[in-house]
Amino acid sequence: MGGVKLIGITTSFPCARVEWALKLKGVEYEFIEEDLMNKSPLLLKYNPVHKKVPVLVHDGKPIAESLVILEYIDETWNVNPLLPQDPYERAMARFWAKFNDEKCVLGAWNTCSAEGEEKEKAIESAKESFAFLEKQIEGKKFFSGENIGFLDLVVGWIPIWVSAMEEIGGTSLVNAANFPCLHEWAQNFVQDPHIKECLPPIEKIVNYIQGGISYLRALAANKQ
Amino acid sequence: MGGVKLIGITTSFPCARVEWALKLKGVEYEFIEEDLMNKSPLLLKYNPVHKKVPVLVHDGKPIAESLVILEYIDETWNVNPLLPQDPYERAMARFWAKFNDEKCVLGAWNTCSAEGEEKEKAIESAKESFAFLEKQIEGKKFFSGENIGFLDLVVGWIPIWVSAMEEIGGTSLVNAANFPCLHEWAQNFVQDPHIKECLPPIEKIVNYIQGGISYLRALAANKQ
Repeated sequence: MGGVKLIGITTSFPCARVEWALKLKGVEYEFIEEDLMNKSPLLLKYNPVHKKVPVLVHDGKPIAESLVILEYIDETWNVNPLLPQDPYERAMARFWAKFNDEKCVLGAWNTCSAEGEEKEKAIESAKESFAFLEKQIEGKKFFSGENIGFLDLVVGWIPIWVSAMEEIGGTSLVNAANFPCLHEWAQNFVQDPHIKECLPPIEKIVNYIQGGISYLRALAANKQ
Repeated sequence: MGGVKLIGITTSFPCARVEWALKLKGVEYEFIEEDLMNKSPLLLKYNPVHKKVPVLVHDGKPIAESLVILEYIDETWNVNPLLPQDPYERAMARFWAKFNDEKCVLGAWNTCSAEGEEKEKAIESAKESFAFLEKQIEGKKFFSGENIGFLDLVVGWIPIWVSAMEEIGGTSLVNAANFPCLHEWAQNFVQDPHIKECLPPIEKIVNYIQGGISYLRALAANKQ
């Protein structure tokens, strides 16, 4: 299995991150659409630990976990660097990437999957987390300056995936009034031609997330 | 605040990772012991996001999250590299580091904090996770070869912290019979003079973990 293959699904933002990185680097790749309800032998072979997408397969060697893949892409194809050169700035990009994945993603997910009091708490908590990102982007076009970089790709789920979650949850988490800088960044981000190329329509993402919520609720109901 | 300072507690393995890395690199640093029950203004200033240790402060600039700190140390002080040079091997080290932190740590923690059926499940699940690490270390002295590297430091909690959790939970998770390679690696790891220098006595760690369990149980009881 030579060349570059990406096992993923188009509605998943960790997969979109990887596609965006490959596009920005000008790397040719084949996208292999996975069916998460009926996982392929290819996925099970290449990510036996987590059995999750995305998996990047480069000349037959698999890499899983989107942040790990982004670093690999950046180290393998040097054109258009994603991470800053300065070690401290690199550390900050990695810190906020982890923060995004642990706090913002979970927070936003809870705003559309929880109910009642839990939901109210989740909205509060998600906004607190986005407020930290707002501070990071203040006064800058992209997170690391003039060009799209590592942290932009990591936070790149905000423009469409957060909108989908807002639609499902009937909330407004990131808007021009509460987070003007993050909102403006989101507008700029999705205008980039490389990003635009791999941006699924919001209706598909709404369906995908609703499917995920129903699936988890059914699992929880079966456990009781 | 010039030079290198580490805000931490000696009984925390994420802090130990950072100390080990600094020792291996031969970096002089000041260790500032934190009181987690009464957090210092210094910690709140330098890690306002998570308010957690470890925080490395280098020439006044703070970095939090132990894995992020390890990468920063490796990029700032080039002697005795921690991560491998090859991008694919680097990706694998990062993948297993994340796996360790998400699966093994949580798994082992649950074996000593859960009870009854939950505990039995936790033991099963922790062993499944350690089995993946066993495969990674098979046939090697250290995870990246002949010398202690990034992944060894990340997994370096096993020799003492897992033993402490075993003592508390009355279990045996990693031993010579079930994971001979991981067990041998653990013996080698703690023999290294740099590692030995920052290895708290197991009784202190037992007390620390027991304190954590009691604290979380009290919090949970208050919530009900």
